[in-house]
Amino acid sequence: MITVHGFTMSGNCWKIATILRLTGQPFRWVEVDSNAGGTRTPAFLALNPNGKIPIAVLDDGAVLTESGAMLCHFAEGTPWLPPPGLARTRVLEWLFFEQYSHEPAIAVARNIITYLKQADQQAARLEQCRIAGERALGVMERRLAGHDWLTDSGPTIADIALIAYTQAADEGGFELARWPGVRAWVARVLALPGIEKLPAA
Amino acid sequence: MITVHGFTMSGNCWKIATILRLTGQPFRWVEVDSNAGGTRTPAFLALNPNGKIPIAVLDDGAVLTESGAMLCHFAEGTPWLPPPGLARTRVLEWLFFEQYSHEPAIAVARNIITYLKQADQQAARLEQCRIAGERALGVMERRLAGHDWLTDSGPTIADIALIAYTQAADEGGFELARWPGVRAWVARVLALPGIEKLPAA
Repeated sequence: MITVHGFTMSGNCWKIATILRLTGQPFRWVEVDSNAGGTRTPAFLALNPNGKIPIAVLDDGAVLTESGAMLCHFAEGTPWLPPPGLARTRVLEWLFFEQYSHEPAIAVARNIITYLKQADQQAARLEQCRIAGERALGVMERRLAGHDWLTDSGPTIADIALIAYTQAADEGGFELARWPGVRAWVARVLALPGIEKLPAA
Repeated sequence: MITVHGFTMSGNCWKIATILRLTGQPFRWVEVDSNAGGTRTPAFLALNPNGKIPIAVLDDGAVLTESGAMLCHFAEGTPWLPPPGLARTRVLEWLFFEQYSHEPAIAVARNIITYLKQADQQAARLEQCRIAGERALGVMERRLAGHDWLTDSGPTIADIALIAYTQAADEGGFELARWPGVRAWVARVLALPGIEKLPAA
């Protein structure tokens, strides 16, 4: 059985539990609190030298890292990842957008405000997160104001990847009412059968 | 013919020119200086609402964004991207590692020091880049101390993605002599037929 090492409150880890549930792949879960040093222990670093969750350990002992790569791996051959060609490339564009332009702003703001409770001490960094996060939400709004899903292939791992932290954007100080297309899409994705919302703090 | 909009000094843009050359796909190049506001013009934002280079415009007018997704798109069906399964996932892991853990440290340090020439004004950010960049190079060293390539599939787009800024790490203040496996790999990748080194500043 697949073993996922992750932190329940992490959107990156939520992505992996979600795609495994949606594709009917059983897994067990090992809780790792990255804010409490759980990814910096020698035992964890032996599994992932980059010291980041989530990771997944397969039956043969192979360790998978990087939530975007893991989404692709577990969705391969299912409708959640279109076959190679432009349709797949559209999904990949959103996966890389999420990791470069969205998560480092919105997930980091959420962690500073809601988990570390350091909004005052990290005010300058939080302001950078606000600017970058608002830009990222604007890019999503431009697509979602006129479409149900992020790509033309129906719901895919692009939607799973982007909703991971967008569903909790309020915990990072982002008021989704300003991006009504994004807000409607969040409700649409969360209403899909088999999706369980990320727990609130 | 494919049209690439990119900045010659950008490693992210270099990746796209490189995979197109390696796979024999002709392209024309439109120079865009992102440090001079070239990605914030209305004309550019109409092509990529996220305001980032590189982008590629295909014959049918489709616009591709995100260097990692574009590498996969242009390498599909070639030895530079293994078929779906664990071998492909290993490549994707490195592509996401590059965009999340490597580029935001090493490319940003290079830009601050060598292009913006703001090492003093941005000393705090540069120190964050140094810490994160050294960690990323350490993760690469752990693999490359004992292997010729980043994955077991021979040279792939994982090597292209990671060398993009590693070949210019000295311009970001990183002395590759500290990571001898990485340094040997840089020479190995640059010696591949068809690879042209990123120009020095």
